[in-house]
Amino acid sequence: MKNVKVKLNQNSYEIVFASFNSENFEERFLKLSENRAVLTVGDKKIQQLYPLMAYRYGKFFALAGGEDNKNLSEIERLCEYGISENLDRKSLFVAIGGGITGDMTGFTAAIFMRGVEFIQVPTTLLAMVDSSVGGKTGVNSASGKNLIGAFKQPKLVLIDVNFLKTLPEREIKNGLAEVIKYAFALDEKFFELLSGNVDKINSLDLNFYNKIIHRSCEIKADIVAQDEKETKNVRALLNYGHTFGHALENLSNYEISHGEGVAIGMNIAGKLSQLLNLWSESDYLKQLKLIKDLNLRYAIPRNIKIDDITEVMTHDKKASRGKINFVLPTAIGSSEVFSNIDMEIVKKALEESYE
Amino acid sequence: MKNVKVKLNQNSYEIVFASFNSENFEERFLKLSENRAVLTVGDKKIQQLYPLMAYRYGKFFALAGGEDNKNLSEIERLCEYGISENLDRKSLFVAIGGGITGDMTGFTAAIFMRGVEFIQVPTTLLAMVDSSVGGKTGVNSASGKNLIGAFKQPKLVLIDVNFLKTLPEREIKNGLAEVIKYAFALDEKFFELLSGNVDKINSLDLNFYNKIIHRSCEIKADIVAQDEKETKNVRALLNYGHTFGHALENLSNYEISHGEGVAIGMNIAGKLSQLLNLWSESDYLKQLKLIKDLNLRYAIPRNIKIDDITEVMTHDKKASRGKINFVLPTAIGSSEVFSNIDMEIVKKALEESYE
Repeated sequence: MKNVKVKLNQNSYEIVFASFNSENFEERFLKLSENRAVLTVGDKKIQQLYPLMAYRYGKFFALAGGEDNKNLSEIERLCEYGISENLDRKSLFVAIGGGITGDMTGFTAAIFMRGVEFIQVPTTLLAMVDSSVGGKTGVNSASGKNLIGAFKQPKLVLIDVNFLKTLPEREIKNGLAEVIKYAFALDEKFFELLSGNVDKINSLDLNFYNKIIHRSCEIKADIVAQDEKETKNVRALLNYGHTFGHALENLSNYEISHGEGVAIGMNIAGKLSQLLNLWSESDYLKQLKLIKDLNLRYAIPRNIKIDDITEVMTHDKKASRGKINFVLPTAIGSSEVFSNIDMEIVKKALEESYE
Repeated sequence: MKNVKVKLNQNSYEIVFASFNSENFEERFLKLSENRAVLTVGDKKIQQLYPLMAYRYGKFFALAGGEDNKNLSEIERLCEYGISENLDRKSLFVAIGGGITGDMTGFTAAIFMRGVEFIQVPTTLLAMVDSSVGGKTGVNSASGKNLIGAFKQPKLVLIDVNFLKTLPEREIKNGLAEVIKYAFALDEKFFELLSGNVDKINSLDLNFYNKIIHRSCEIKADIVAQDEKETKNVRALLNYGHTFGHALENLSNYEISHGEGVAIGMNIAGKLSQLLNLWSESDYLKQLKLIKDLNLRYAIPRNIKIDDITEVMTHDKKASRGKINFVLPTAIGSSEVFSNIDMEIVKKALEESYE
C-alpha cells in the first residue's frame, strides 16, 4: 500500500502503511531517532498488550488513560517525567495508542520545552482514520472536550492494521462512523465501495480495512492540505455529524462514544438536510441504510432533551459568538457549511431522530 | 518614536511606542478588537494601579501573580474563565503586565481552543525590552522555569514608557540587565550610548528610557527575524549571561531575580572569555564598570556552591544531551556560541566571580 503524503506549508509528512515490525518502518524509525532520546507514550492497555513494543526504543511512559484523565495535570505529569529522564529539545516522542494517547502526546510535544518532534502509531481504527492525521491535539477542560490544545503535526504516522485484531468491537464501530463520514460528506465513490462490501466490514477483513483506512487518510490529508488550521470553511466539512455528536456525547456524560455520537449526528444532519430540501429523502434513506447495515447507532436516546442539545451546541468551540455552523449534506458525497439555519427546523430534525 | 517591525515568515507584527491613552493606539486597538470578545489579563497589582485600563475593553481576569503561580493550573483557571465568558476562537486576549503576565497570557493564547490572537502591553522594563518581543511564552513546572511553553507571536505590542513611573527600583534594575546585555553581546555603539548616560539611566529619565527601550527592541527584533524558533545559533546570543543566570536564580530559590542572575552571569561569562583569551582584560573591566555604575549585582553569593551551579547548568533546557552551550563575548558588542568549553576553566571563572 502506497504512503499517503500530507502536504502542508511547513512540516509536510507521510503516513506509512506497514507492519510495526517491518524493515520499511524500522529503517525510517532508526533514521528519525538517530542521536536523540526517545520516549514512547501509551496507556496501560498498550503496555500490557504490546510490552515489547512499548520498551523497544527506550523508556515508556504509561498514561492513566480515559477521557477523565485527558487533562492538563496528566500532561504535566508526562512533562515532569520527560524532564526527569533528561529529555531535551531534540528528543522524540512516540505515541502508541488511540485518539486520547495521540492527542495528549501530540499536545505534550507541542509544549514540552516549547516544542519537540513526535510520531504517531495509532492502534485504534478511529485514530488511524481520523485523529492521527491533521495535527489537532489537545486535552479536555472542566467545561468541555478538547478546548485546550494546539495544532501540531507529527513527523510520521505509521499505520499497522494488525493492531485492529485486539480492538474491542465497540471501538471498531467508533472508527467506522468516521470512515462513513468521509464517504457521506466528501466521496460518493467511497460510499459505493463501502455499501458494496458491508460483509467484509462486518467480518473485520483486514485487507479491506487497510484499503478503507488508506482512502480515509487520503481524503483527510487532502482536506487538511487545503485548510490546515480550519480558518477556511474547507476543514469544517470533516465535522459532518460532529456538532450534534459532541452535544450528545456531552449530555450523556460520555456514555455515548464519539463514534456513536457522530453516527447519530450524521443521521440528524441528514434529516435536517431533507427538511430543508438540500437533498432528497432517498439520499437520506441511503445514508441511514449504511449506518444500520454496519450496526451503528442512529437515534437519539429518549433521556436527552432537545433544548439541552441546542443549548450545548451553542457553546461548542466551533460556534462563533453563539452562532452554530452546520455541515449539511447536499447529496451523497457532497456537503457544505450553512450558518443561518432556522432553529425551529433544527428542533424538528431532532424530534424526528429519537429512538 | 517610530514603530519597530518584527519581520517573521508568518505573523509579522509591530511594536508601537505610544501612550496607552493616545489616539494612535486607540485607533489600532479598535480596529483589532472589532467584532470579537476581548479579555484583558493582568495580576492584582495591575488591577489596583490601573483599574480603568483593566476594564476598558471588557472583562478582566486577575492572575494570582508571582513565579509560584506561573503554572499549568493557573493557565487552566484562565482557560476556564474564558470559556465561562463565552470566548471563542475569534476572541482576543490582552496581556497587561510584566513578563509573567505576558508569558502566561501568550501561552494561553497559544492553546486556548488551539490558538487565538493576543496583544502585549508590557508594564515592566524587563517585559518591554525582552519578554514581550520574540514570541517565547510558557510556564514553570516543578522541575524548572519555562520548561513548558510555546512560540506564540502577539498581533501587536504597545510600549508606553509611563508605566515605569510606578515600577519598583529593583524591577528597573531587572530590565537594565537585559538592556546592557544587548549592548555587550551585540552592539558596541549602544554600549557607548549607555556608558555615556549613566546619570540619565540612574535618574529614570523617561525620554532616555524610551530611546534605549526602542534600541533594545530593534536589536531583539532583528535577531528574532533571523532565527524565530532558536534553531540556528543566532537567537542563542540573546541568552548571554542567562545560562549562569538561570542556575543562580534556581539555586537561590529565586531570591536572586532574573535581572540579577543575568548581570552576575554576564560578569562570569566575561571572566570566562578573559581566561580563554577570547577578549581582553580591559574589555572585561569595561563591562564590569557599566554593571557597577548601574548598581547591578555582579558577584555570586557565597552560599551558592560551584558544583551545584555546573550541575544545574547541565540540566538547563538549552543544554542538549548534557552539553552546555556558552555564549561568550569576543569584544564589547560581539559574542559567539561555544560548545566545547573545558569545565575546569568554567569552574575557575566561577571561583573568581564570588562576592
